[in-house]
Amino acid sequence: MQRLYQFQTADKIVSGQHAVKQLGDYLPGVNRDIRSVLVLTQPGIKDLGLLDSIYEQLEDVHVKTITDVMLEPTVGNIEDMHEDIKNDSYDVIIGVGGGSVLDAAKVLSVLKTNDQSVNDMLGTNLIEEPGIPTVLIPTTSGTGSEVTPNAIVTFPEEELKIGIVSPYLLPDLVVLDPMLTLGLPKSITAATGMDAFTHSLESYISSKANYLSDTFAMDSIRLISSSIVEAYRNGENVEAREKMIVGSMYGGMALTSAGTAAVHALAYPLGGKFKVAHGVANAMLLPHVMEFNLDAITEKLSNVAKEIRIADDGEPDQQAAEKMIEQIKEWTKTLEIPQDLSEYGVAEEDIEDLAVAASKITRLLDNNPKELSLEDMKNIYRRLLG
Amino acid sequence: MQRLYQFQTADKIVSGQHAVKQLGDYLPGVNRDIRSVLVLTQPGIKDLGLLDSIYEQLEDVHVKTITDVMLEPTVGNIEDMHEDIKNDSYDVIIGVGGGSVLDAAKVLSVLKTNDQSVNDMLGTNLIEEPGIPTVLIPTTSGTGSEVTPNAIVTFPEEELKIGIVSPYLLPDLVVLDPMLTLGLPKSITAATGMDAFTHSLESYISSKANYLSDTFAMDSIRLISSSIVEAYRNGENVEAREKMIVGSMYGGMALTSAGTAAVHALAYPLGGKFKVAHGVANAMLLPHVMEFNLDAITEKLSNVAKEIRIADDGEPDQQAAEKMIEQIKEWTKTLEIPQDLSEYGVAEEDIEDLAVAASKITRLLDNNPKELSLEDMKNIYRRLLG
Repeated sequence: MQRLYQFQTADKIVSGQHAVKQLGDYLPGVNRDIRSVLVLTQPGIKDLGLLDSIYEQLEDVHVKTITDVMLEPTVGNIEDMHEDIKNDSYDVIIGVGGGSVLDAAKVLSVLKTNDQSVNDMLGTNLIEEPGIPTVLIPTTSGTGSEVTPNAIVTFPEEELKIGIVSPYLLPDLVVLDPMLTLGLPKSITAATGMDAFTHSLESYISSKANYLSDTFAMDSIRLISSSIVEAYRNGENVEAREKMIVGSMYGGMALTSAGTAAVHALAYPLGGKFKVAHGVANAMLLPHVMEFNLDAITEKLSNVAKEIRIADDGEPDQQAAEKMIEQIKEWTKTLEIPQDLSEYGVAEEDIEDLAVAASKITRLLDNNPKELSLEDMKNIYRRLLG
Repeated sequence: MQRLYQFQTADKIVSGQHAVKQLGDYLPGVNRDIRSVLVLTQPGIKDLGLLDSIYEQLEDVHVKTITDVMLEPTVGNIEDMHEDIKNDSYDVIIGVGGGSVLDAAKVLSVLKTNDQSVNDMLGTNLIEEPGIPTVLIPTTSGTGSEVTPNAIVTFPEEELKIGIVSPYLLPDLVVLDPMLTLGLPKSITAATGMDAFTHSLESYISSKANYLSDTFAMDSIRLISSSIVEAYRNGENVEAREKMIVGSMYGGMALTSAGTAAVHALAYPLGGKFKVAHGVANAMLLPHVMEFNLDAITEKLSNVAKEIRIADDGEPDQQAAEKMIEQIKEWTKTLEIPQDLSEYGVAEEDIEDLAVAASKITRLLDNNPKELSLEDMKNIYRRLLG
């Protein structure tokens, strides 16, 4: 049977400078009778004052704030938060933060309405009922989680990260406000930004790429490539930050339809055991995996190079594709993306285990345009051993 | 307060050749317990056999088919159909057809669950409750209605067409199957295709254009401009038909976020009194309104011309924009779009009334990048008087 392409996203997306200041206007569209709200976030975000204008929009309702979301939350972390709110009733959950917070908000929302544990939900389409309404407000430009039906949960004992995929994880409202990202530290701007670029580029070269995903992938690539260096160098540049936050969202839309590939498969094992943050791991791996893929995706990389005007329309594909790889490497340098896994405690003797773990993530490896042997994977990890 | 940008679309979109043959796989995502289905369509679509593979997917459920949807349905037509199904219970409504059918399916869905008449719903956000789930399956590439929160109802006595706008009109599932459009007659391919192009171009030049709408508008423009002539000349070309059906959907997404402008404002009065089909009216008016707008949108038209490669990157904007206008006129000729309103019974003495009626549609005229006086509108209509 012919392969079909799918697209799903958040019910409603509101975007623009100071968008959170108008949150109150949009909440009735999420739930017409809001009396009690759970705000899920992290201490750093609260301390930066990013919640202030959100609280102003919630004046006449009961608000509980939980700041306990861990970076890359574990199953225990999520269960603890669920326990904490078990006897409360909320009309909406508002997640304000990076991918960790947004993923946690999505999972808590469905835990509230289902007699299922997190373990019961692992995998695709296993959640039984819709959750309570969610509003997702990203404070980084990277994850794209605000528009995906995915949530990633960490299992520290098994050194594993496992995905939950369900349309019930898609939020009712996304608010994209670039002002929330002005204060992002340089290193986070760099890693999350390259993570977003990875989502788009991997979706564009994915063997499941299609019209729908290409639209978002290419626009994401355009937006990010024209703003990532400026957002890194001058974090207060609102225009660059706006391009990044929209580009990052498009990355999430692209990967929802096309899936990601080998970069992500190789990144997950680094997160499980060595605690390399997801965005950092993707950013580290991107140039090396693309170099490995080059001969299988010459035309596609050439298209990208021409689209972002680092190659002329008339240039031969090989030459344009090589320019694209060079561009990625140049970003890696300019943005000071870490390039040494030994800083995270990875040694030569860990490479075998990492490659074996990555080789099991066939769901993503199947999307890669070129097959990777175990040896190929080891060689890619080795390039990142200082 | 800063203007915010919004995006909303169908819950799920499935796209690809023969997609309707897999409808059964996607229906449980729309409603897990489907026992009774209403199929809404028109006699011509049933006669062409386009419903056969849909019925095959509905083998074990009760199916009622209504083929009574008029072209550009009147309030009476919709109320009659509602009366017809008043005592029935349906778990999903499947609309299969052009914009008229899709709009009717959207309105019937909310009439079933609300104690409101069609009249109560006219305007924006006045529908009180979500409707029963809907699946929209377009058989033309033009309307974009499958992904908009809008439905247009005709009031024949007042010679008016009025919009209903509500997020509850967005469908649960859209199935885009280019195979359903292979048999479209040339004249419908032409008019609906230029209608879709109008949606995209008007969204792109709209004063409400934004990042989100530009993404869809430009991709729609790319897809349609690269396939409309081929789809017209060789209707069996599946690749061209697929580009058209996806491009048309993107046009709907673009206009949902940016709105349409003067072309649409001038088109509606032609539909009300003179029964010029919506797509035909838009297609007729497009080159003339763009010519009027030219000096206000030189750079944007130049961008479009360069994007679709009818102008070089280095060309001056004025020259590139003029090429874009010429391209639209050339399409009008090649696709044999009617260019004489007198064929529809319009005479010089009707021009005043048409212009007065159009001038009242400020909701759309406000989006136009250049203000139109009554005299400007009359002049545009006059160009279409053979």
